[in-house]
Amino acid sequence: MAAGAVPEPDVPLAARLFDRLRAQTSDGIGITRASYGEGEQFGHDLVAASGRDLGLEVATDFAGNLYVTLPGRERSAKRLILGSHIDSVPQGGNFDGAAGVLAGLAVVAGLKKAEATLREDVTVMAIRAEETPWFPYSFLGSRAALGTLPPEVLDRVKRSDTGLSLAEHMRALGFEPERVRRRERYLTPGNTAAFIEVHIEQGPVLVEENLPVAVVTGIQGSTRWRHARITGRYGHSGGVPRRYRRDAVAAFVEFAHRVDRRWIEIEEGGTQMVATFCVVSTDPGRATMMRIAGEVAFGLDVRSTSPEALAEMDRFIAGIIPEIESRRRVTFDLGPNTGVRPALADPGLRAGLVAAARAAGIPFREMPSGGGHDTQAFLEAGIPAAMLFVRNENDSHNPDEAMAIEDFAQACRVLMGMLWARA
Amino acid sequence: MAAGAVPEPDVPLAARLFDRLRAQTSDGIGITRASYGEGEQFGHDLVAASGRDLGLEVATDFAGNLYVTLPGRERSAKRLILGSHIDSVPQGGNFDGAAGVLAGLAVVAGLKKAEATLREDVTVMAIRAEETPWFPYSFLGSRAALGTLPPEVLDRVKRSDTGLSLAEHMRALGFEPERVRRRERYLTPGNTAAFIEVHIEQGPVLVEENLPVAVVTGIQGSTRWRHARITGRYGHSGGVPRRYRRDAVAAFVEFAHRVDRRWIEIEEGGTQMVATFCVVSTDPGRATMMRIAGEVAFGLDVRSTSPEALAEMDRFIAGIIPEIESRRRVTFDLGPNTGVRPALADPGLRAGLVAAARAAGIPFREMPSGGGHDTQAFLEAGIPAAMLFVRNENDSHNPDEAMAIEDFAQACRVLMGMLWARA
Repeated sequence: MAAGAVPEPDVPLAARLFDRLRAQTSDGIGITRASYGEGEQFGHDLVAASGRDLGLEVATDFAGNLYVTLPGRERSAKRLILGSHIDSVPQGGNFDGAAGVLAGLAVVAGLKKAEATLREDVTVMAIRAEETPWFPYSFLGSRAALGTLPPEVLDRVKRSDTGLSLAEHMRALGFEPERVRRRERYLTPGNTAAFIEVHIEQGPVLVEENLPVAVVTGIQGSTRWRHARITGRYGHSGGVPRRYRRDAVAAFVEFAHRVDRRWIEIEEGGTQMVATFCVVSTDPGRATMMRIAGEVAFGLDVRSTSPEALAEMDRFIAGIIPEIESRRRVTFDLGPNTGVRPALADPGLRAGLVAAARAAGIPFREMPSGGGHDTQAFLEAGIPAAMLFVRNENDSHNPDEAMAIEDFAQACRVLMGMLWARA
Repeated sequence: MAAGAVPEPDVPLAARLFDRLRAQTSDGIGITRASYGEGEQFGHDLVAASGRDLGLEVATDFAGNLYVTLPGRERSAKRLILGSHIDSVPQGGNFDGAAGVLAGLAVVAGLKKAEATLREDVTVMAIRAEETPWFPYSFLGSRAALGTLPPEVLDRVKRSDTGLSLAEHMRALGFEPERVRRRERYLTPGNTAAFIEVHIEQGPVLVEENLPVAVVTGIQGSTRWRHARITGRYGHSGGVPRRYRRDAVAAFVEFAHRVDRRWIEIEEGGTQMVATFCVVSTDPGRATMMRIAGEVAFGLDVRSTSPEALAEMDRFIAGIIPEIESRRRVTFDLGPNTGVRPALADPGLRAGLVAAARAAGIPFREMPSGGGHDTQAFLEAGIPAAMLFVRNENDSHNPDEAMAIEDFAQACRVLMGMLWARA
């Protein structure tokens, strides 16, 4: 295909599908689409029906992921996948996940309408089970398709509302968990050239900076302690002078203050990072006014796209704890570190998105993703992958998510421009 | 009475009464003597019976406080009161309160045994209802006797376990709440020369410094916020860069860190103070890992014997809050300050206790009291008052309180020496 005018993505189609999704999966407060549940299935059926209406090929893998394909001129070439998930958190918003699927559909519908084809197949993928409130395990659907899901997860991980296992839920919808268990690979580096995920931004950066889209540099890794604890000794808050105290809250405050200072230093050194004490609590049964707290529990989530910066924070924390323990006569127990390594976007795909945004005159910035996304599962499996963020108000995972369809259209245009440049 | 050998207090009597109190008011874990309840009444009956056995005068006021008196040579002179409370917290220890009553009894029993009398009446007072877990109001018994209890407290304040009012509990035991309501004064500066309270130390200072007793300089006042709160905004812990955060925990950490630094400076300036963040908690229903906390609740208890130092801390806090609010984009709501003014021990009585300890060769230190005590109610009512601490392991308000009878004996000797010096 020659480099004629870039076809326009079919954003009105996507807008209609967003409306139908919202109407059908509303729970009265937000929208709810449980992983392997009714709302998710409605979304998959809706996308499949739209694909058939468009005359596209529709397929489902053994784990229930949906593939809607515009055939390319060389069917043996590796395919390009545009996609994301359809499920949502309970009482979530309509766009988290669905935007990536419908952006893909808008692009292939636009290509189809323009009677344009690429060399490669272009596949819209609707991924199953990304939101962890249902099954507490990351990227179940994409990992199942990639053959990277540990088999024991099928039986061990239960859905929070039904108590049934992942395998049971797959089987109930007619899928084949035994093929997941055998680690069959539906998608491989041999059959997939790229995975590109459009997703709403889950923070305020694009709103604050008045930009419609961002090209994602990578998904932050983390060093993360969910169940950390400091133990000191309870005592009378009036009766124990400073030198005899073993005050767990005071130790927490010093620790958290020093982590905060170190974070500032690392960012001032030019390395992206965020550090959050997400939860902190004295023991509600034992801590009261007039008492020095002998225990405090907290969770710390440090994220960065730089593995070196995460390692540096780990070293810093390991270094200050013994000193605080000894001076304040307390004991830290950080518990297991459940952090993950950063996943950097494929440089070629990222450059392609940047070039497409520039060519279309769409303002953008580059930025890391704070949250995890299916893109990570593809990168881990050795498939080039990249992401594009769309401006979104009020964060995600709540009913107040707000993505303007104009911004979504800009993301679709970047995606289309990038595919077109490959053509 | 001439300055002969100081009589020996009857410590074996006190030791027997401690044992009977413990045996009778044990709850299986610690000891429980509810205010105006069964355990407290048992203690009052026990002390009254011992007083009668010793041939002393026994009386009860309209609020149920007990007075056991060794008559002096001048019955019209103002009396000296030695006393404390008998009630305990639930599952508390045997010595918090009772030690002050039994020290008084050991002293008057020792005087009686030595056939010694003073010029003034010496009265052992067993005070009602000092421990606030039962009725959440301070110094009910002593304030009732002093005519300083606000009348509305009688009906408004309910006992936590029964739900019945203070007036109802008084009436059930045959006392006369209407006389409390009329603010009758059983004890006045006109009929009471001094109140001296022996009490276990509620902190570790005497244990750490290997001293049996301490003369109390005063009862710390406080600047105290029980229900403080910081409100920011919830957000994705990975997706919101530092400059867009409204992190309530980070604001708390900075605030608490700066209060801690200021406390150090005030103490380095030579002024006694303690500052405790007794409780801190993110909202268990809303704060989770992966989320910036939009709210944190905390309680702060700052104490000092110096009103100037408390005012200085208030000014410091008022000064830093707007700055933290503006930089971190959060809102502080400290709630009501429920602090109280410091109460300094009567200088003459304090000097008398110091002189008596020196004369008896008993090692001691001077130190503030962290907790509140009935002594405060006497000082507020214009009656000279002072306190003597006894070494005690494992703090108070728990079953592991541990006062050695030898240390108690030293406190009784200091008390006896002081009375003897007045004689």
